[in-house]
Amino acid sequence: MSSVFGTLFKVSTFGESHCPAVGAIVDGCPSGLALSEADIQPQLDRRRPGQSGLSTPRNEQDLVTILSGVENGVTLGTPIALMVHNRDQRPGDYQEMLAFPRPSHADYTYQVKYGRRASSGGGRASARETIGRVAAGAIAEKFLAQSCGVEIVAWVDSVGLIPGGEVDLDSISRSQVDASLVRCPDPVAAKAMEELIALVRDNSDSVGGVVRCVCRNIPAGLGEPVFDKLEALLAHAMLSLPATKGFEIGSGFAGSSMLGSVHNDPFIQKGGRLGTLTNNSGGVQGGISNGEQIHFRVAFKPPATIGVSQRTAGFDGQEGILEAKGRHDPCVVPRAVPIVESMAALVIMDLLLRQEYRQRGRG
Amino acid sequence: MSSVFGTLFKVSTFGESHCPAVGAIVDGCPSGLALSEADIQPQLDRRRPGQSGLSTPRNEQDLVTILSGVENGVTLGTPIALMVHNRDQRPGDYQEMLAFPRPSHADYTYQVKYGRRASSGGGRASARETIGRVAAGAIAEKFLAQSCGVEIVAWVDSVGLIPGGEVDLDSISRSQVDASLVRCPDPVAAKAMEELIALVRDNSDSVGGVVRCVCRNIPAGLGEPVFDKLEALLAHAMLSLPATKGFEIGSGFAGSSMLGSVHNDPFIQKGGRLGTLTNNSGGVQGGISNGEQIHFRVAFKPPATIGVSQRTAGFDGQEGILEAKGRHDPCVVPRAVPIVESMAALVIMDLLLRQEYRQRGRG
Amino acid sequence: MSSVFGTLFKVSTFGESHCPAVGAIVDGCPSGLALSEADIQPQLDRRRPGQSGLSTPRNEQDLVTILSGVENGVTLGTPIALMVHNRDQRPGDYQEMLAFPRPSHADYTYQVKYGRRASSGGGRASARETIGRVAAGAIAEKFLAQSCGVEIVAWVDSVGLIPGGEVDLDSISRSQVDASLVRCPDPVAAKAMEELIALVRDNSDSVGGVVRCVCRNIPAGLGEPVFDKLEALLAHAMLSLPATKGFEIGSGFAGSSMLGSVHNDPFIQKGGRLGTLTNNSGGVQGGISNGEQIHFRVAFKPPATIGVSQRTAGFDGQEGILEAKGRHDPCVVPRAVPIVESMAALVIMDLLLRQEYRQRGRG
Amino acid sequence: MSSVFGTLFKVSTFGESHCPAVGAIVDGCPSGLALSEADIQPQLDRRRPGQSGLSTPRNEQDLVTILSGVENGVTLGTPIALMVHNRDQRPGDYQEMLAFPRPSHADYTYQVKYGRRASSGGGRASARETIGRVAAGAIAEKFLAQSCGVEIVAWVDSVGLIPGGEVDLDSISRSQVDASLVRCPDPVAAKAMEELIALVRDNSDSVGGVVRCVCRNIPAGLGEPVFDKLEALLAHAMLSLPATKGFEIGSGFAGSSMLGSVHNDPFIQKGGRLGTLTNNSGGVQGGISNGEQIHFRVAFKPPATIGVSQRTAGFDGQEGILEAKGRHDPCVVPRAVPIVESMAALVIMDLLLRQEYRQRGRG
Repeated sequence: MSSVFGTLFKVSTFGESHCPAVGAIVDGCPSGLALSEADIQPQLDRRRPGQSGLSTPRNEQDLVTILSGVENGVTLGTPIALMVHNRDQRPGDYQEMLAFPRPSHADYTYQVKYGRRASSGGGRASARETIGRVAAGAIAEKFLAQSCGVEIVAWVDSVGLIPGGEVDLDSISRSQVDASLVRCPDPVAAKAMEELIALVRDNSDSVGGVVRCVCRNIPAGLGEPVFDKLEALLAHAMLSLPATKGFEIGSGFAGSSMLGSVHNDPFIQKGGRLGTLTNNSGGVQGGISNGEQIHFRVAFKPPATIGVSQRTAGFDGQEGILEAKGRHDPCVVPRAVPIVESMAALVIMDLLLRQEYRQRGRG
Repeated sequence: MSSVFGTLFKVSTFGESHCPAVGAIVDGCPSGLALSEADIQPQLDRRRPGQSGLSTPRNEQDLVTILSGVENGVTLGTPIALMVHNRDQRPGDYQEMLAFPRPSHADYTYQVKYGRRASSGGGRASARETIGRVAAGAIAEKFLAQSCGVEIVAWVDSVGLIPGGEVDLDSISRSQVDASLVRCPDPVAAKAMEELIALVRDNSDSVGGVVRCVCRNIPAGLGEPVFDKLEALLAHAMLSLPATKGFEIGSGFAGSSMLGSVHNDPFIQKGGRLGTLTNNSGGVQGGISNGEQIHFRVAFKPPATIGVSQRTAGFDGQEGILEAKGRHDPCVVPRAVPIVESMAALVIMDLLLRQEYRQRGRG
Repeated sequence: MSSVFGTLFKVSTFGESHCPAVGAIVDGCPSGLALSEADIQPQLDRRRPGQSGLSTPRNEQDLVTILSGVENGVTLGTPIALMVHNRDQRPGDYQEMLAFPRPSHADYTYQVKYGRRASSGGGRASARETIGRVAAGAIAEKFLAQSCGVEIVAWVDSVGLIPGGEVDLDSISRSQVDASLVRCPDPVAAKAMEELIALVRDNSDSVGGVVRCVCRNIPAGLGEPVFDKLEALLAHAMLSLPATKGFEIGSGFAGSSMLGSVHNDPFIQKGGRLGTLTNNSGGVQGGISNGEQIHFRVAFKPPATIGVSQRTAGFDGQEGILEAKGRHDPCVVPRAVPIVESMAALVIMDLLLRQEYRQRGRG
Repeated sequence: MSSVFGTLFKVSTFGESHCPAVGAIVDGCPSGLALSEADIQPQLDRRRPGQSGLSTPRNEQDLVTILSGVENGVTLGTPIALMVHNRDQRPGDYQEMLAFPRPSHADYTYQVKYGRRASSGGGRASARETIGRVAAGAIAEKFLAQSCGVEIVAWVDSVGLIPGGEVDLDSISRSQVDASLVRCPDPVAAKAMEELIALVRDNSDSVGGVVRCVCRNIPAGLGEPVFDKLEALLAHAMLSLPATKGFEIGSGFAGSSMLGSVHNDPFIQKGGRLGTLTNNSGGVQGGISNGEQIHFRVAFKPPATIGVSQRTAGFDGQEGILEAKGRHDPCVVPRAVPIVESMAALVIMDLLLRQEYRQRGRG
């Protein structure tokens, strides 16, 4: 297990799908930040299951409690412990998985790695693991917003083969994103996506999608070459999320087919600073933020747990038919939106703190 | 700076384009491994510039010396220091960059971050930074090959808009890859790529490409959820390379448009173990290797340094015309092949050592 | 803040003296260990305040709850979250500290470092911070006992100027230690210590002491030169405890006055292994355990919070008289005994896991 | 092996007694620091063997070369690689150790841990390992001196049973320390120490000693509770040095016998800040520097390698007589002085950088 993330803003998460609680400890949050549960709950609400018929019927309120690190509504600079109780546990749903590892789920690999696995649900491979990340990310977001005006907004860029349409990176807001259940700001695309997800759900199947994210007002200078480049930590963060299969920043894979003379972002004067005319770089050059918007995309596969019968081998090697009964999302990307935002916030927060110390070196 | 990579197999790299030497320290390599410079030099030779007219005319022999950690041809278990001298330095080539930050290069961001930058060449953002990675990766590769039979092979999957064709993941070998200058195993595609790169070079331009990589004989059980999942560390490693813009594993972005019933990899009996019929997972489930081939793709943008005139702002904000004279590669992907292999080896090696300790827990 | 300890067995602690809860997350505990609250509670009971008239009147039951990482009484290999509620909070006791930083306490330095401090009690500098350490250490101890037969026993070696007498390192047990309230196995010394502590308490003063600890059945080979030598991590662990001022291992400071011909521990055959005739080394040579007993001593200063009037400057620089009213221990060493044991267990556990991976390197 | 030290100012060392070179990489040094070999060489000269008849006859010039990270005499902010060649190698001196592990040396434990050991000399347990530490420490010292006026001075506080006398912590300087070969500022004590060491040397024996160190002008606020308290990192750093057996800060072990009313350091107004009247705390309260002098002591055992015949068991378990022929110091403390200073500088430098980031949190 490696459940600790970050160098100076260090997040330790805990909890699996059917234990008493899930949560996180945030170590390294600066003191003096006004903070209460009300700053954290909204992103947890956007993440929680049961928000609509498009997501898992597992119904959790996911109310967060701050256990430490805050006094009189202000952070002390000490570790902030965050806890959310697991309430809607139904271990009985998972009997069939004793014999069959779910195809493309983590049942088999956890068994191999640990010599055992949580007997009910996905254990630590469950989406509930991300609660601690989102709670910690909400703290990072508040600090970033207050100290630098950082804005982080993600949305659904595609579901299955349905593209999400153009989005204005300068203005897209969370309220625009949340206008549709599927969290795609284009209303036509959103409607088509919702219909696809409903169809897939009714077929007891699942479907993948892509989440796109933009980070605005990121100070230039963040990122620690050579191994902790900004894009490297973002890629790390995103590929650590359940069900992710790909990450691209700026021009991404499309950029690999371009000429340098087209791809290069010329510098121009922007207010008091150098900016770039285009942004194929995605806000990062040489692994360091350049003051432009950071924008990236994350590919999510279709959820592995499906109701459709699957012919597959059991732990004993004998083939048979698996019909999974566990509650699951037919498509994870609408709920993945706040999770992607949270992980982006954790990366940027850590790199902001890691850059701060260089000020003395300048003097 | 963050120039240390890994938890138990820990690599610290050093060196920029025009200092006396570049290299690395490998801390945590197990004792008892037969090792000499001859084990490391071949991958450095595949990485070095000047291998053909398709790469930069900078000509370096890049001979490696082992400074410590090996006695009588066998590793002691102590840190292995590796050094390669920089010989072909031409600081004079970089005068024009004093006034203009190269578009999409790291000149501007290094200046912002550090308050100064290497006055000649790319400094730590130069491709020479990767020498330490490749030298360290060669040690990891040898250990992995001897202890588990691991095979890691990368190749050029596309250059610009030219696709590289199908490759048999079971059998592709480095000698097949090296049969063409461009390191694409499909001879027809390779010829087209070489012609494109030559054309781009003659136009003083550059072009991007994609490298694909397969890792065979990886033991099941490697990967440390939730933050150090195998794919998360691979993504981190690859996006820490210069000029990378994207990473995908298994089905990747294409997987995001699929149904779960199609995407899932059913389990089947394979010899004495459970395997999967298909491999959309790319050898990883729940962040842990499942014993199947790990395969992934990495997108490289076109090199930022081009000879074509570029209209761009200088450090003083005044627009002008930059004509870069530094030697550069018109396309990095042929030389990126051994670098991608090396980073994959570093990730797998570290995760192998991190998994080992669990054996006692089983007793 | 740096509230994470360990490389593979990684402990994150949280909580201050007057927040809702204190505790820890243990990440990296091997799977398959039988574990329940009953394995952890006894050491917390030995640590808790109010055990006798010799310790602080703050009365806490300190009941631990396991929130995650254990299913059906066995560890899953996932993070184990541990929580203890703070119940007996009396913020009102600390009003006088708003104006005066307590001499030799952390009020002033926390204020300087964080720009604020917990307004009540010692915050993170409170002894309650050690609860998470003790809970985590109890898990490490159980694993070490089961896998290697490790025994860790600490006791009070002196209080003020009263020495604790000779103790047989081969046989000393926790029940012998707990036979006296002051946790000194020598009954005569224990009685004198108790009388001294009672006298000091009645005078509203405090007194220091020394804790000694022996670790038996430690496998040879633990310790990671050069920076994570066994004694270096033990010293780090012990000096991270509140109120500690010194650490020595084996011959310690006395060894500095000896000749090499006297100090050296000759090797002898012991059963099937090499052992040493004497043990001035304290079980460690070159930073690596040699299979002999590890024994060390830790110096604790007198608690800084005393009821005696103190002439001292306030935060405003004006001198005045401070009469602290907070509940405190007149002497911490009796309660420090399980804390020292726990930190020793955390160090040894982490080094055991870090040594395990070398087995593959041998093949 | 764990040869990396520090969080933001990260030092990786390499090299054993008889390989081509020893040295270090310093990652995280701020840019803009004027730096050349001349800043580093003096401390290496103070550390090197052969300075007088009191130390080992091994004669090394130990000239350092900066390989990277510095351009035009100023640091770039990139990793600084430092190398010192090993020249005076005499592997033949160590034949007798093939059969016998030296008592209280690391031969046996390295063999157990790694399954092999350097066949000649102490390998990584040799004092030559400390060269990389001293070179890195010299860089930290220069930065600390320039940015905060930090002064770090160590000296020999005792050799065998000879105490070093009183030293004025406010004024003691390196030139005063270096006035005697033995590096004890008290001339009478120094003479006695030199005679003792000469006698011990002539008897082919060795003797231990204590080094004391003071750090002046340390800003208040350094130290990262709870695990990376300033004194915890100092203890870690010092106990990671070869031959150390103990560490104490401020009142140390003597403080354990005092009453709180005597031990507490009352606050007083000092210029524009709060200071303390006494300094039993050793400049640290609650793990954080308080702006007073940091002072501590480190106990060194007598060197394990002695010429005196020793009856001891060989690797095969058979007892015999070992007469070691290797060159060694009869007493390490004079040469340990710059090493202790260097490790203190590394700890303070890292904590200074770790504290810097909190400035933004205050805004």
